[in-house]
Amino acid sequence: MQREAVPATAAAHTAMTPHTLLTPSIAARMIDHTLLRPEATRDHIQKICDEAVQHGFASVCVNPSNVSLACTRVRNTPVKVCTVVGFPLGATLTEAKQKEATECLRLGARELDMVLNLGALCSGDALFVETDIRAVVDIAHRAGAIVKVILETALLNHEQKELACRLAVNAGADFVKTSTGFSTGGATVEDVQLMRRIVGNRVGVKASGGVRSAEQMRAMVTAGANRIGTSSGVAILRELGNNHG
Amino acid sequence: MQREAVPATAAAHTAMTPHTLLTPSIAARMIDHTLLRPEATRDHIQKICDEAVQHGFASVCVNPSNVSLACTRVRNTPVKVCTVVGFPLGATLTEAKQKEATECLRLGARELDMVLNLGALCSGDALFVETDIRAVVDIAHRAGAIVKVILETALLNHEQKELACRLAVNAGADFVKTSTGFSTGGATVEDVQLMRRIVGNRVGVKASGGVRSAEQMRAMVTAGANRIGTSSGVAILRELGNNHG
Repeated sequence: MQREAVPATAAAHTAMTPHTLLTPSIAARMIDHTLLRPEATRDHIQKICDEAVQHGFASVCVNPSNVSLACTRVRNTPVKVCTVVGFPLGATLTEAKQKEATECLRLGARELDMVLNLGALCSGDALFVETDIRAVVDIAHRAGAIVKVILETALLNHEQKELACRLAVNAGADFVKTSTGFSTGGATVEDVQLMRRIVGNRVGVKASGGVRSAEQMRAMVTAGANRIGTSSGVAILRELGNNHG
Repeated sequence: MQREAVPATAAAHTAMTPHTLLTPSIAARMIDHTLLRPEATRDHIQKICDEAVQHGFASVCVNPSNVSLACTRVRNTPVKVCTVVGFPLGATLTEAKQKEATECLRLGARELDMVLNLGALCSGDALFVETDIRAVVDIAHRAGAIVKVILETALLNHEQKELACRLAVNAGADFVKTSTGFSTGGATVEDVQLMRRIVGNRVGVKASGGVRSAEQMRAMVTAGANRIGTSSGVAILRELGNNHG
């Protein structure tokens, strides 16, 4: 199972240059088609699953209680099910994150976007932050799944962002990710550049939170992101199709 | 242990009339002194614990990863430690909520504010919502703890609010609670009145989200709330002291 995880992470980590053409199909394969609003109904979840299959998105990203439904809906397609762990505050116990991860993997999730422990990071307890991440990473990797570590950059200063990236890499994370979309701000070009600079090319960078247009996506990719979390994927592809098609 | 839970819930459920005097000491005993910001540090948590002890608040309400610290800090005082489960989206798996509850109770939490499954509620799956709540309530009651069920009223229509109250009561909840403080709106007088009307006097009503002044607290209590979740407890007591003391 481990085999699956490695190509998924290693494949597309090279940042695009400003001249790289972002076609609809290239863009689609970078997008986690996301619906994390807590009041989303079964119909909403099924709709985004169908869109993900239709457009060839990398994954559909849903809350844990929708993993089972999403897995059924995208079965026998290349679309993976991504879910979230300790989301969106990251402030639960490691044991609770592990249990959530274990159950979501059992149901078929193949990508886990976990929020690191922000309180511990801001308290200077780097060891706790790294241990908390590794606890989830180990469970995911054993199941052939990958982990994206959400920093929630809007709440961190420059040094904390750098430290968080290093801790995530040390803990074996497959991606670092900017934002939950539930905090005071989302992805910025500067944060994506910082994250890519720290993690190098062995680990992915996911930009999420406020990426709603082709122009914004292009800026994030140019800055070093190789995965985009957005609920606007269909509109972005339409924009790209009009410009390039 | 069950003994503890019953007085805690049954004690103060009668709504105050508009003429009831809200003194600082009466107010303090109704307040869950709350700090759920994910970036709160150990120092912040210790500070609110000390304030809770000093002012005689009902509880200090913190995220799961701060329960252990808070329990140590308020030990041998009447202040309880309250924490949150499935917070703030309510969209995780029942098994994850149960694990989170179990571990928090083991660490010493005595009140659990859980978020119901909003997606299931909005999908019309009442049975799932009730079962999810009961799964946590049963664990809490066995440990002599109480459960407040967060409706997140800002995301619900009138019928959904009524249904959520009935499901929480059926599932054995000790309180219904308006809001997480992390959504699009907080407690309103109308919602508190609705909730009190549906749950009667056997179950508590906690107003939370945006209650920041003595006037707002008085309005909530008059509307039927017997517990207030706020990070402004100290300021509210100061206001009440100036008016009544």
